[in-house]
Amino acid sequence: MDMIEKKIDGETIYDGKVIKVIKDRVVCPNQNIAYREVVKHNGGSAILCITEDNKVLLIKQFRYVYNEIIYEIPAGKLEIGENPYDAALRELEEETGYKASGLEPLGIIYPTCGYSNEKINLYLAKDIKPGHKHLDDDEFIEPLYIPLEDVKKMILSNEIKDAKTICAISNYLLKYKK
Amino acid sequence: MDMIEKKIDGETIYDGKVIKVIKDRVVCPNQNIAYREVVKHNGGSAILCITEDNKVLLIKQFRYVYNEIIYEIPAGKLEIGENPYDAALRELEEETGYKASGLEPLGIIYPTCGYSNEKINLYLAKDIKPGHKHLDDDEFIEPLYIPLEDVKKMILSNEIKDAKTICAISNYLLKYKK
Repeated sequence: MDMIEKKIDGETIYDGKVIKVIKDRVVCPNQNIAYREVVKHNGGSAILCITEDNKVLLIKQFRYVYNEIIYEIPAGKLEIGENPYDAALRELEEETGYKASGLEPLGIIYPTCGYSNEKINLYLAKDIKPGHKHLDDDEFIEPLYIPLEDVKKMILSNEIKDAKTICAISNYLLKYKK
Repeated sequence: MDMIEKKIDGETIYDGKVIKVIKDRVVCPNQNIAYREVVKHNGGSAILCITEDNKVLLIKQFRYVYNEIIYEIPAGKLEIGENPYDAALRELEEETGYKASGLEPLGIIYPTCGYSNEKINLYLAKDIKPGHKHLDDDEFIEPLYIPLEDVKKMILSNEIKDAKTICAISNYLLKYKK
């Protein structure tokens, strides 16, 4: 089945700090014309840290868009031209003050396939050591270590709602059959 | 720790079909002023269907924002005023032609906590029976039944990238300890 949509033309609606918004006119496989609203995002990296005694590093952070304090694994946007691996190491240290000796890929996820091109690169951190915490002026973050078994319960009870966090835990559990 | 950001004022940047974009000025906990770009989205529902012989109903769909055909569970946006449960039943039948006798909640996920207020309601469908497929004019969807064990492998190999799909499978596996 032909499913591809081809762009005819488009316009930029908004060019902001975190997102850019465009509106494209496309031809559908049946030759109908449709409009696609696209939020352009530079992508991000997120890091699952599990300590030797099987505790997961989570952060509590207020998220303005949801008007809630939520649990997440450390994560952040890629800088322009930055590769996802370097961004992951940087964000981990900036947000939590921990350095990893290396990162193991846990897949790339597509959080918003209806309207945003954001991709999030998931990693598992190895050998975490204390480094230098450095939060942005408008970041307020509280790090916590929670046993993996409790994290699973928090996903099941829906106390953890963040998709990248659930995906990282899921991919880790599938990979290591925990 | 006080983490709450309070809105001072805001402006509407764009009011579209799927998304609305606003830019708010906020006061941070340290009294600094910051701007928050917010993509407003009405939210969605996504449905995990697992047959008696343990096959998962996935759809293949071209996603313009990623310029890729990807695997997903059936899902869709809430209509204005529609509740997530009804939206899930409606989208399942429209996209796949299958009716469920009921739905079991599998949690609510937050896919984009940095810039969009979208929430996705996950459900597990019960007793699927043939109904009436009805795709939108600009929807082109191919349904597939894939054994659960193969779906796990497709998540691990990153062939499945869609976050809501991974979260629904993950929550199902955690709940039923599969």
